[in-house]
Formats: sequence, C-alpha cells, structure tokens
Amino acid sequence: MTLSMHSALVPTATRTLRNLVSILEKIAAHAEARKIDPSIFLNARLYPDMFPLVRQVQIASDTVKGAVARLAGQEPPSWADTETTIEQLIERINRTIDFANSFQPAQIDGSEERPVELKMRSGTRQFTGQSYLLGHALPNLFFHTTTAYAIARHNGVEIGKADYLGRVE
Amino acid sequence: MTLSMHSALVPTATRTLRNLVSILEKIAAHAEARKIDPSIFLNARLYPDMFPLVRQVQIASDTVKGAVARLAGQEPPSWADTETTIEQLIERINRTIDFANSFQPAQIDGSEERPVELKMRSGTRQFTGQSYLLGHALPNLFFHTTTAYAIARHNGVEIGKADYLGRVE
Repeated sequence: MTLSMHSALVPTATRTLRNLVSILEKIAAHAEARKIDPSIFLNARLYPDMFPLVRQVQIASDTVKGAVARLAGQEPPSWADTETTIEQLIERINRTIDFANSFQPAQIDGSEERPVELKMRSGTRQFTGQSYLLGHALPNLFFHTTTAYAIARHNGVEIGKADYLGRVE
Repeated sequence: MTLSMHSALVPTATRTLRNLVSILEKIAAHAEARKIDPSIFLNARLYPDMFPLVRQVQIASDTVKGAVARLAGQEPPSWADTETTIEQLIERINRTIDFANSFQPAQIDGSEERPVELKMRSGTRQFTGQSYLLGHALPNLFFHTTTAYAIARHNGVEIGKADYLGRVE
C-alpha cells in the first residue's frame, strides 16, 4: 500500500493510543497491587513546571483529534479536560481512537498542501498538511506518550519500551 | 509535494536530530554556567534500569541510520558507542544527519512493501517498509529523543517543548 497522509496518521495514532491504554492499565494494576492511590501516578511529574501524567494523556488525545480534523479541513471538537481517574483517561483515549477512525481515508489523503493554522502559546503558526503531520502532530503525539511512559517508569511501574511500541503487524 | 517514504523519514529525522543537538548545546551551557561536570547529565537516568542520556542519544542515532539504510535495501553500518562527552555526541548526531542525507529520494521512495528484518532483544521481527517506518523507526526516534529531553528537564536544564519540536517551515 502506498504511503499516504491517512495511512501515516490514523493507523499510527490508533496503535500509539492503544499502547497508551496498555500503559495506563499497567499503572492501574501496579497501583492496586501495592495499594497506592492511582491519582498519585496521574498527578506525578518529572519537574515542578512540567505537566503531570494526566495532562500528558489529554494532550496526546488532543493532538490526534486535532490532526485528523485539521487534515480533513474541519475544526477540531473541543473536549473538556475533566478526567481524574485512569478509567476516565482510557475512555477518553478510546473516544479519540473512535473519532480518528470515523474519518474516511479520502477525507485525509491528498492533504499534503492543505493550509493548517495552529494557535500555540508562542503565537499562530502556519503549516502545510505535510509539515503539520510530520513536524508537529506525530512528534507531539510521541512526545506526550513517551513522557506519560517516562513518568510511570520513573515512579516504578514495571513497563518497558515494548509497551510503548506495541505489536506492529 | 506528495508524501513519500523518503519525505516522511529523512527531513523528519534530520529536523529531530538537529533539535537534539540544540538540546545538547543547552545542557552544555547549563552545566558550564553552574560549574557542573557535563558527564553528570550524560550519565543521568530516570530509573536505575533505564538507559542514561548518552545511550538515549546513541539509540536515536542508530534508529535513523538503521532506518535509511534498511529502507534503501542496505545493511546499516555499525558505529561504536564510545561517546563520553557532549561534543562527541553532537559529532555523532551530525554524522548521522550526513549519512541520512547521503541517500537519494529514489533509493528510499517506493519501499513501502520492502521486507525489513530487525533483530531485537525479543527476537527477529519482520516488517514491511511502511510498518517499519511508522511502527518502529519514527516512534523509536521520538521515544529516545523525548527521553533524552526528559532526563535533561528532570535534572533542571532550562528547555521546553519548543526545543524538541524546533522550527518547521
């Protein structure tokens, strides 16, 4: 199958988010086995002015829903960041996967030159579809997924890189 | 420009590795300003059985040289992991960028179905070119770059996500 904007984004994001669900499930099991309040993991961070684990997951979700919507020429939906439990985070990730897979390949394929405007803290940024996918959406998704993993790992959850990479068929 | 195996890999990896150089330069400046031995940062890790920063950078480099070579149907060159200073790590990254950019697009484009065999600790894995690029090479590059960033950030180096994402034109 020829690489395309859809095939580079949706299956990749789906697999990455599923792996993030597996990591969250391992955090839940670890917390339960050791009788640790799971919210301690969700509120853990690697440095005082870095986001905690719960926010890393929310941003990973936002990155994917933003990417599929924008590349399809739509305004991304806004979802409230209200999750406080692992179950709620997993529900949000599954909602994100469903949202991403509700788009047909034809809605996203061919979006290489589609203008994408992104409001960031540093100001409004202009991308083409391709520079947005490769220079923002995918790096940002992997950044926040890896950081969620790193926070869990730093706090003793027994996970390894295979949990992050998952199975690739 | 239509998305292709080369355009998804080489410019993306080049930008990511350049951003990693910038992060290493900020670590060097931070260490110098505070009179801290830079090797303390290079040997820092987030958990006792995780790799230290120096190894994260070496694996990011290996991931890129492996990906461009394998997708071009070549055996990746083997480079010794002998770096002990920030300057040596930057030299290695620049060598990796030069290696990646020594390939012509035509050598990598069209490699979606090319069989790729990867010897991993868990055994030998079979990929197609496309599943290798999206399910292993790019996620692995971003994983180790983010982990290098996270180790530096956790140790107080003043960097932000903009250093990781860099400028996208």
